[in-house]
Amino acid sequence: MKNYFSSDFKLGVLGGGQLGRMLLTETQKFDIHTSILDSNATAPCAEICNTFVLGDLLDFDAVYNFGKTVDLLTIEIENVNLDALDKLEDEGLTIYPKPQDLRIIQSKARQKNFYIDHQIPTAEFSHYAYLEELKHSFENNIIDFPFVWKAARFGYDGNGVKIVRNIDDLQSLPNVECITEKLIPFKNELAVIVARNADGEIATYPVVEMEFHPEANQVEYVICPARIDFKVAEKAREVALNVVSKLDFVGLLAVEMFQTVDDKILVNEVAPRPHNSGHYSIEASYTNQFEQHLRSILNLPLGNTESKVAGIMVNLVGEEGFSGDVIYENLNDILRIDGVTPHIYGKKETRPFRKMGHVTIVNSDIDTAREIAQKVKETIRVISK
Amino acid sequence: MKNYFSSDFKLGVLGGGQLGRMLLTETQKFDIHTSILDSNATAPCAEICNTFVLGDLLDFDAVYNFGKTVDLLTIEIENVNLDALDKLEDEGLTIYPKPQDLRIIQSKARQKNFYIDHQIPTAEFSHYAYLEELKHSFENNIIDFPFVWKAARFGYDGNGVKIVRNIDDLQSLPNVECITEKLIPFKNELAVIVARNADGEIATYPVVEMEFHPEANQVEYVICPARIDFKVAEKAREVALNVVSKLDFVGLLAVEMFQTVDDKILVNEVAPRPHNSGHYSIEASYTNQFEQHLRSILNLPLGNTESKVAGIMVNLVGEEGFSGDVIYENLNDILRIDGVTPHIYGKKETRPFRKMGHVTIVNSDIDTAREIAQKVKETIRVISK
Repeated sequence: MKNYFSSDFKLGVLGGGQLGRMLLTETQKFDIHTSILDSNATAPCAEICNTFVLGDLLDFDAVYNFGKTVDLLTIEIENVNLDALDKLEDEGLTIYPKPQDLRIIQSKARQKNFYIDHQIPTAEFSHYAYLEELKHSFENNIIDFPFVWKAARFGYDGNGVKIVRNIDDLQSLPNVECITEKLIPFKNELAVIVARNADGEIATYPVVEMEFHPEANQVEYVICPARIDFKVAEKAREVALNVVSKLDFVGLLAVEMFQTVDDKILVNEVAPRPHNSGHYSIEASYTNQFEQHLRSILNLPLGNTESKVAGIMVNLVGEEGFSGDVIYENLNDILRIDGVTPHIYGKKETRPFRKMGHVTIVNSDIDTAREIAQKVKETIRVISK
Repeated sequence: MKNYFSSDFKLGVLGGGQLGRMLLTETQKFDIHTSILDSNATAPCAEICNTFVLGDLLDFDAVYNFGKTVDLLTIEIENVNLDALDKLEDEGLTIYPKPQDLRIIQSKARQKNFYIDHQIPTAEFSHYAYLEELKHSFENNIIDFPFVWKAARFGYDGNGVKIVRNIDDLQSLPNVECITEKLIPFKNELAVIVARNADGEIATYPVVEMEFHPEANQVEYVICPARIDFKVAEKAREVALNVVSKLDFVGLLAVEMFQTVDDKILVNEVAPRPHNSGHYSIEASYTNQFEQHLRSILNLPLGNTESKVAGIMVNLVGEEGFSGDVIYENLNDILRIDGVTPHIYGKKETRPFRKMGHVTIVNSDIDTAREIAQKVKETIRVISK
């Protein structure tokens, strides 16, 4: 096995946002030299990584040249230049998750086709190269309101997903490649994070339950463990493992799923990296998702995914009506509460619905944690000066 | 209250070693801009803090000039230039722990006098300005073997404390200011970490039990909670609170104590900062000692000091006979064990008994944790290439 710890080994990470930042906590813990590529000189990782390189993640040369300076490459965001990764892989660089998996996941249309090709349960969908095609489909009664619209690529932070209920909604969609899905009534949105290393060792985190903000389409609470029937949780876990197996995935895969009204599990989408639905693990789990990501991509033994205590995560997003230098109002008040840990991502400017941080609430009792989470959400405000 | 989070506020830390490094994890979590002063350009903090300044912690100008660039100053090592801190404090800078407390703690002789002046139980001691005075005392039968010798200042990492059993031991002592203590037979070495903020809010961590390596005089295991009688633990806690109260201390104070054979509690020494005996808290506690240090010096509400699970810490020290580029042999084997987390401090060179890292073992059952700790200690080796 390679010697990663306090050695000459260099880990490269494409992307320097909050996920990279939380990953850095773990590379610092293990003293693994970490280089970050990001196009933003004030990205959350910029000042605290070993080496920071400024460059566009979608630019071939930027990604290729960065890749040539590291011993193993990973990502914290999936929208990166894949041609550069292919070339780097051809030239012998180890890249996890594998570029071939990123290619499937980057495009929601390819993702959906992959699920269908491999009999992985998912909502029915249609695929359109342009908005005009979608409109044409509507005019010919092939598709009807309401439906879910998703940009095929580059959706992030709640952009790129819309529920289309009427002709006005339809008219306001951007003219990009997209997919549409039937709006399926569901009981719960669930997620399972699966880790797999190159040796094929696999570990799954407990099923978590997500509550979304109805307008912003962003997660409001992530609750671990999900308060669902054991059998449904087991089914969700099996579906997630099946996705990992069919992708022959190496790294950390967050599988988001719907539990339908008749207790079917449908895969919504996957993220090939640490994910918002696993942030609770920093405080609640024996091995948090960022350490597990490292373990999986470095082919180290995987850690225990069980929880020490129940965990709930509240996202801190910029309040509507505020833009500019951020202030976390009443942050001190939530620090007074037992088991409450804020994570501030280091973005100096807030804007409506921007992910600025999160708060984890842990408690030996999940109902108490849920009450505190509500209180936290009602207390703290992300506003501007 | 001040706005520390993603703001212009600058925290300054004197010292950039492993304690500073673990503190940086917390300042990153809260996005508090942190500047570090250290004389070593490759100090564990050098690459991962917001601002790194090269300078000698004992040099007046280095400390004073650094202090002028920050909004609040703290330490991760107590051997710093106090005249500079006095001047900075006079000029209005907030410094926690307070320079007056650092002055008492920096000198083991002053520390001992402080305990005696304030009726805090401690072992009897004698104070010598030079080695010759001590030898003279021995020749006149005022002091007899065995006794404990401690350098009055700058003891660290097991240097500066020796058990003197014979004339050879006595002859080999360095010629520095020192204190001597009777060698007291004790059942346990205990420690209690107390946090206090400027508002006077106080929080104590559970009493931990320490096992020392007999030769290197370094902690081998720290066990939380200490497996001692509740009443003894309560007494230890009261003694620690008394020290904090008498010092009018602000910050984090680690109080090391002996439990004598007749269950008396004697204060051994204190450290005015996060301490080796509190490293277990990163994985085991609701609020770890580094976050608590931040909360106390920034006058934020203190966090819950209770544990989620039992925790044991094993120090990783350089093996005898090895010096040079470090290798952590069999580190992968300990990663296979549930609840085991290594922390590698980022020192590229090992030497005998140098503190290179630590490993935390957490488990819901303390006896299982203790067995795993032994296994960890027997498995991992800190050697050189």
